[in-house]
Amino acid sequence: MFTGPIQDLIDELARLPGIGRKSAQRVAFHLLKSSDGEAKRLSDAIVTAKDRVRLCERCFNVADEAICEYCRDSRRDRTIICVVQEPPDIVAIERTREFKGLYHVLQGAISPIEGISPDDLRVRELLGRIQSPPEGVAVAEIIVATNPNTEGEATAMYLSRLISPVGVRVTRLASGLPVGGDLEYADEVTLGKALIGRRDLTD
Amino acid sequence: MFTGPIQDLIDELARLPGIGRKSAQRVAFHLLKSSDGEAKRLSDAIVTAKDRVRLCERCFNVADEAICEYCRDSRRDRTIICVVQEPPDIVAIERTREFKGLYHVLQGAISPIEGISPDDLRVRELLGRIQSPPEGVAVAEIIVATNPNTEGEATAMYLSRLISPVGVRVTRLASGLPVGGDLEYADEVTLGKALIGRRDLTD
Repeated sequence: MFTGPIQDLIDELARLPGIGRKSAQRVAFHLLKSSDGEAKRLSDAIVTAKDRVRLCERCFNVADEAICEYCRDSRRDRTIICVVQEPPDIVAIERTREFKGLYHVLQGAISPIEGISPDDLRVRELLGRIQSPPEGVAVAEIIVATNPNTEGEATAMYLSRLISPVGVRVTRLASGLPVGGDLEYADEVTLGKALIGRRDLTD
Repeated sequence: MFTGPIQDLIDELARLPGIGRKSAQRVAFHLLKSSDGEAKRLSDAIVTAKDRVRLCERCFNVADEAICEYCRDSRRDRTIICVVQEPPDIVAIERTREFKGLYHVLQGAISPIEGISPDDLRVRELLGRIQSPPEGVAVAEIIVATNPNTEGEATAMYLSRLISPVGVRVTRLASGLPVGGDLEYADEVTLGKALIGRRDLTD
């Protein structure tokens, strides 16, 4: 154990997700050895991000204005909304360049184990966007892009049951073999999903 | 990619050692979701540590006063100095409770590949402590506790050649099998060192 300000810094760093005591110590000593400028920039970036970053009033993506860059972009298709769990999921989908609609960030997934119910998520707000679209353009499709795990699947099922009756198409990202993957090494659940979701090659 | 203050924070975090883009993003979103207090504490801890932490004038360990806690402690044996590469090595040695002497932090190891020569380390200051001890107590032994790798070994050899002629005993930490380890799984270099360094059981 160190003492004083070094130990305080190590303690604060070790609170961060994915950073253990060893990494926290390494980062702390890196900061102590780095230029004053570098340490100050990190310190300031934390405060500035906390001060200035807020959630988009429409889609709950992170934003530095009241409405985020995607909701502001008039070229994006307002008839289709992709529902994700967290803001970084948007970045992953944007990288595919396959989607030009709007987003909706639930801020999590339904998880009875962690005590997260639909009321803890931005579900009501999603329903609001469908029932009275802020720009008046009717929503035709909701793509549920929650994670392909128990919580994500439960959330997708819940949203499908909630939204389908309103008359909006609800779709789910395909599960299957990763591109470039090897069938021999695929786990049986993924392979099973790939079989069930098989497509005609005449497409 | 995000934009604005979030991306700035992710960029600054990703500069830290052992933190890749994915971890930086996870930490950034953790901070955004955390309480203002938690983020502020981390930000302040960085600035405070940079402001207040300095190097001990005698041993170059990190300290919040001019002289570090070990050099200040009058109960510690001034006749023996353990030489380490970095301050965290002191913490590791203290945990053994086997050493009650003083320390000297080189602030690195000799590495021709990285262009680090003895002049870049606190070698001159070590020699100064041996030749004119600040508290007048003659040094009898230098334990070289640099890392058991190429750079650490080279540094140990260099220090031995430099200090032995002064008439001070220079020792090196033993290399050998880790306690609790399994001979079958030991690498051949460690096993070789364990053989060479074997001891009489009558000790």
